[in-house]
Amino acid sequence: MSDVLIRGGHPWSFGEPVDILIRAGVIDRIEPGLEAPDAEVIDVPGRLVLPGLIDAHCHLDKTLYGGDWVPHSAGDSLADRVANERARRGELGLPNVDNITALLERMIAFGTTHVRSHVDVDPVIGLGGVEAVGAAARKLAGRVTVEMVAFPQFGLLTNPGTAEYLEEALKNGVQTIGGIDPAGVDRDPVRHLDILFDLAEQYGAGIDLHLHDPGALGAWELELIADRTRDHGLEGRVTVSHAYALGQIDEAYQDRLVDRLAAAGVSVATAAVYSFPIPPIKKLDAAGVNVACGHDGIRDLWGPYGSGDMLERAMHLAYRSTFRRDEDIELALRAATYGGARALNLDAYGLAPGAVADLVVVEARTPAEAVVTHPVRDLVMKGGRVVVRQGKLV
Amino acid sequence: MSDVLIRGGHPWSFGEPVDILIRAGVIDRIEPGLEAPDAEVIDVPGRLVLPGLIDAHCHLDKTLYGGDWVPHSAGDSLADRVANERARRGELGLPNVDNITALLERMIAFGTTHVRSHVDVDPVIGLGGVEAVGAAARKLAGRVTVEMVAFPQFGLLTNPGTAEYLEEALKNGVQTIGGIDPAGVDRDPVRHLDILFDLAEQYGAGIDLHLHDPGALGAWELELIADRTRDHGLEGRVTVSHAYALGQIDEAYQDRLVDRLAAAGVSVATAAVYSFPIPPIKKLDAAGVNVACGHDGIRDLWGPYGSGDMLERAMHLAYRSTFRRDEDIELALRAATYGGARALNLDAYGLAPGAVADLVVVEARTPAEAVVTHPVRDLVMKGGRVVVRQGKLV
Repeated sequence: MSDVLIRGGHPWSFGEPVDILIRAGVIDRIEPGLEAPDAEVIDVPGRLVLPGLIDAHCHLDKTLYGGDWVPHSAGDSLADRVANERARRGELGLPNVDNITALLERMIAFGTTHVRSHVDVDPVIGLGGVEAVGAAARKLAGRVTVEMVAFPQFGLLTNPGTAEYLEEALKNGVQTIGGIDPAGVDRDPVRHLDILFDLAEQYGAGIDLHLHDPGALGAWELELIADRTRDHGLEGRVTVSHAYALGQIDEAYQDRLVDRLAAAGVSVATAAVYSFPIPPIKKLDAAGVNVACGHDGIRDLWGPYGSGDMLERAMHLAYRSTFRRDEDIELALRAATYGGARALNLDAYGLAPGAVADLVVVEARTPAEAVVTHPVRDLVMKGGRVVVRQGKLV
Repeated sequence: MSDVLIRGGHPWSFGEPVDILIRAGVIDRIEPGLEAPDAEVIDVPGRLVLPGLIDAHCHLDKTLYGGDWVPHSAGDSLADRVANERARRGELGLPNVDNITALLERMIAFGTTHVRSHVDVDPVIGLGGVEAVGAAARKLAGRVTVEMVAFPQFGLLTNPGTAEYLEEALKNGVQTIGGIDPAGVDRDPVRHLDILFDLAEQYGAGIDLHLHDPGALGAWELELIADRTRDHGLEGRVTVSHAYALGQIDEAYQDRLVDRLAAAGVSVATAAVYSFPIPPIKKLDAAGVNVACGHDGIRDLWGPYGSGDMLERAMHLAYRSTFRRDEDIELALRAATYGGARALNLDAYGLAPGAVADLVVVEARTPAEAVVTHPVRDLVMKGGRVVVRQGKLV
């Protein structure tokens, strides 16, 4: 792999235009006026340079992307949507490697370099979703990195046999396991969490748990999760996705709970979907709780929305958080970049010497403008290799 | 103007591909297999055809669009934003005809054929905003129609002299007047509304009033507005914009209030901005209350967001309303088309013989898909004239 010199751009948080020298896929130097006679030079005058975007929460296995338009067919309740998915995923041929590949290609075109996808595992589908996502990810190896979370969508205890498939997934190389509403869905929060944390400790795995349970119930479950994270020595390895409850409790309790999550090194991942509550990301950030951002479902049996563009998703997060000032909007962009990297435990991420050269170049005067307008990606690099030019896969 | 035959498209709500024959800027026939030897033929095989999009609520006079990126500089409170705008609009040279023109051109490129813009009038700015918006609208005459609402942004009673400028605007050809939070901002709801309704009746004008006042307070003001609309014989001429209160009261009161608005022929215009409450548009529609949709501010001193794309704005409205099914998502599209037309009292609007040929052609399999993906506008016609091809102004 030849050296590359990205010349004349404005990397995020650098005060002046600087050049980026990439050697063997890794950022070697970031300085003004670099010379590198043997390097391929890519001029990006005045362009904003961001680190690779990170979708820290999606459901690749469920997507209908790239196929027919499938009008949403479920009723309005959660039970309707669960029943609808159970009934129709087989009929629609899900999971589908072509759909997953089409969606991943779109994500790449938008500058996403890492994806954490929850993937359903249960006694009916077994590891079929893991295999399908794995097949698509292998096709696009070197252009995007996909991490899977073995996810008990239909419950862990309430859908007998599912825990065994979580373990099976771990034995087959999946490194993170999921959970879902230990109280609201699975009806036994302590046992649900004990199964997850015991498995995680046994296999050296991480945890990323869906928590939609509202208000005091969800907040209490967050306490259980924080405690178990410390008890099992899993600081930095546990993420709670959605965590609507954090946006619904009073400020004083919010303050205490946020501190407890910070002390346990628990990350929060949010997608800012529909009108659902949003965790207070400014408060979380100030308290040292890592915040990541993802899409949630993209065009699937749970709903037709989602573009695959993490700059647009960061816009939704900033917008729903009523962030107007540049520095506030950058919090949402941090969630879609550095926060995702920390949740995914990525080494060597970012805009600094020693980091893997995953870069996104766009025309925007400030990072906040990039979030607001989410323009065409002029250039995307993954590991020092150009994978996208002018929004098109190379 | 030559005849035009739009051939092979799927007009919204037609079950099969049909041709549209346009004569003298008006839709003459919509039928399969039309022949028109003298007409210019435009083939749009399989494309979705929508009526012109209608932005029923924006603030053209405030926009910074097309200029420098201006980081938002206000604090978090409403008072901060008002003070910031009063202090900075002069410094930034607002209103600016070039900015307004740039934004209108972008709206046209996205298929917007009619815009209702609130325009600040007050003793400091006088009719300067009306003149600036008028100048931009004249430049783009024949490509977009702009209706102005004389808007007392800083209060009617609390900013003495403003009512006189509303009247001055009416004398200068503005046909709709606005109000703002008669209780929360202006502190005397009855007198505020009496001034507006008396002026409207005297000048044969319409009313479009900003109502952010929350909960029981805003709901009570909606009662006052419905009553005055009937008392003054202004059924069909009054719109309440935002109407957050409708989304905050209990269902039983909502039901009663919605019926009262329907009986008075009051329209509701929503922009679905930030995390603010959204009126229950499905309930409003079912009760016969007309619902329109707009952007609110686009890149101005109130916030940096907004694209000018009414299909994207309809997506925000559908998304925040947690609409997933096609028929529900179409309610948001109706607000961005037919609902806007009714609020603006447009004659001869829509996809039917006799309507003015304002059309938008996009690649989408269903109207819901057009909202979700808001694709490039392949073709936009205004009054039978092609104004946009492939997203670019002709």
